[in-house]
Amino acid sequence: MPSLKENIIHEALRLFSLKGFSSTSITDILEAAGVSKGGFYNHFRSKEDLFYAVLERARQIWREKVLEGVDQVDDPIGKICLVLENYRDSYLIDFENIPGGCIFITLAVELADQHPKLADAVNQGFSGFKAMITGYLNQAQKTGDLRSTVSARAVAEMVFAGMLGASVMYGINKSADDLNYAIEAVIQYLKELVRV
Amino acid sequence: MPSLKENIIHEALRLFSLKGFSSTSITDILEAAGVSKGGFYNHFRSKEDLFYAVLERARQIWREKVLEGVDQVDDPIGKICLVLENYRDSYLIDFENIPGGCIFITLAVELADQHPKLADAVNQGFSGFKAMITGYLNQAQKTGDLRSTVSARAVAEMVFAGMLGASVMYGINKSADDLNYAIEAVIQYLKELVRV
Repeated sequence: MPSLKENIIHEALRLFSLKGFSSTSITDILEAAGVSKGGFYNHFRSKEDLFYAVLERARQIWREKVLEGVDQVDDPIGKICLVLENYRDSYLIDFENIPGGCIFITLAVELADQHPKLADAVNQGFSGFKAMITGYLNQAQKTGDLRSTVSARAVAEMVFAGMLGASVMYGINKSADDLNYAIEAVIQYLKELVRV
Repeated sequence: MPSLKENIIHEALRLFSLKGFSSTSITDILEAAGVSKGGFYNHFRSKEDLFYAVLERARQIWREKVLEGVDQVDDPIGKICLVLENYRDSYLIDFENIPGGCIFITLAVELADQHPKLADAVNQGFSGFKAMITGYLNQAQKTGDLRSTVSARAVAEMVFAGMLGASVMYGINKSADDLNYAIEAVIQYLKELVRV
């Protein structure tokens, strides 16, 4: 049984994913979580305060879903492929937690101009993710699995963009086929860089 | 001197780009355009009605900026590279019209779950754009400029995702260097497919 605080975070995550941060009122969250205003303010000083708790919870879900099994793969390119597959097969279809799709993208796009400080917090996750992918690619270049002529940072940029593109399109058309196609395009792209 | 109607569309485009559709009230638009409620409803039946006019205007700006000079390039891969450069150098920095960055992405992400019908209208533009890029790639495969082993549709998917990724990151960090890097990564990706 989740605590009241956990329940508020969970319902806020769902609502932010569907409606974004600004369009979700505290009243919406109170109703969804079945909690009183007093109960809410016992745990959170403000909507911004809740935002950071939701972001932390979203990151935890992300790590659980997207990084699952990655440690058990030796080949660094294989690790990236598994990240892409997990993103598609486990994270993006987590309708219980993020019914509106990738929460990081939704918040980043919405908050960029409205709440730059909150958008920065989201962006730290993007930067960390790109650094992780760049690290795997550097490893792959050391072992000779990845062509040394390509820039690891540029490839990481393409992988990140590929996931972002796939997620935005899936958000609109909810087509599992299109999502699969877009993720496979990124995997093929990576495999081309290995093969030659 | 723009007409009252054009002025409303212009200010709505700016506001949608910054705040999204749902968070922009008709009152916000009236204030920005310096127009009365009566003046507004003389030209638009509803906020949705205005949405379609704004989308049409945004597409016109997109075509003017992003497709500029593309007809004069013979090489289909060169056309795509010019589209990417125009997107970066002319469209994304059009702060007068879209101060909050690529309006299509902002609207697509926001509206996907809130207003699927409006999101569909945005998505039609994405589909059209991907079809255009796929067409250029098909041409390039016919002339032998692009490897025949790659899938034109998959490459178009990566190009589209690359632009999307670049735009989302630029929205958050406003770094011209990062934007340039991300677009160059896509151009390099295309050139790799040509070279081998």
